Amino acid sequence: MARYYEDLGVGDVIDYGEYTTDKGEMIDFASRWDPRPFHVDEAFAADTLYGQLTASGVHTMAMFIRICNRATADWQVRGALGYEELRFPTAVLAGDVLHGRTTVIAKRLSKSRPEYGIVTTHETMTNQHGATVLDFKVSVLMERRPDPKS
Amino acid sequence: MARYYEDLGVGDVIDYGEYTTDKGEMIDFASRWDPRPFHVDEAFAADTLYGQLTASGVHTMAMFIRICNRATADWQVRGALGYEELRFPTAVLAGDVLHGRTTVIAKRLSKSRPEYGIVTTHETMTNQHGATVLDFKVSVLMERRPDPKS
Repeated sequence: MARYYEDLGVGDVIDYGEYTTDKGEMIDFASRWDPRPFHVDEAFAADTLYGQLTASGVHTMAMFIRICNRATADWQVRGALGYEELRFPTAVLAGDVLHGRTTVIAKRLSKSRPEYGIVTTHETMTNQHGATVLDFKVSVLMERRPDPKS
Repeated sequence: MARYYEDLGVGDVIDYGEYTTDKGEMIDFASRWDPRPFHVDEAFAADTLYGQLTASGVHTMAMFIRICNRATADWQVRGALGYEELRFPTAVLAGDVLHGRTTVIAKRLSKSRPEYGIVTTHETMTNQHGATVLDFKVSVLMERRPDPKS
């Protein structure tokens, strides 16, 4: 069922579910897009602070977007206006069970296009120890619920 | 040659070079990570504002990180502290020739760890028409040049 601007309220929390990381996937992704030694070279990574490979930040974003899309497929979002305070506070490791969620922190009608609403959310992903691995705020343009009389 | 905190000055511009987008790669990436119809379904995309598929924002970030890494492999960066004002002002289309660059906008020593410096940059990527497709600021932790006397 389509969800419109009117269907989200400040304080609402939406659960995106889980994503389990995989070492092979981490290496494949980073080899293609972010081939720094601590993402792709196990021998190098063994000597770092973590003692093992860490996921690329872009891969962490990709995993998050994957579970976010699955959970919000029925949201009538027409575009992202901007992302703020994007952080990767804790390294993502192979075998981590990541859990994404979002909280609605603000909403208002668009001034220039009042047929749309602007919803601001606080998006986070935590690992199996409760540590935050991804944290940002985003404002998106959402369609308003069609007038049943029109 | 390794580049340290001392080697970057406010106002410096670093060119990351180019990345040419590919429709098959756009569909492959989005199918895996961001399978919304305007990224993966050509028939659907034909009826949108752009009349064709657009690249996923995560894919756009990945392409940028790829050329950034290639150009900054010798920078002694030890981590990203945070990203601000991340925007995707123009859609990325198949066949676009994207051009990345960064400008150093601030630098200071870390207060808590003065053996590191913090460098803030303004990162942008434009298409072949000069329109900005990606824009953000990031602060990174950089190693200071080792003391030759120590």
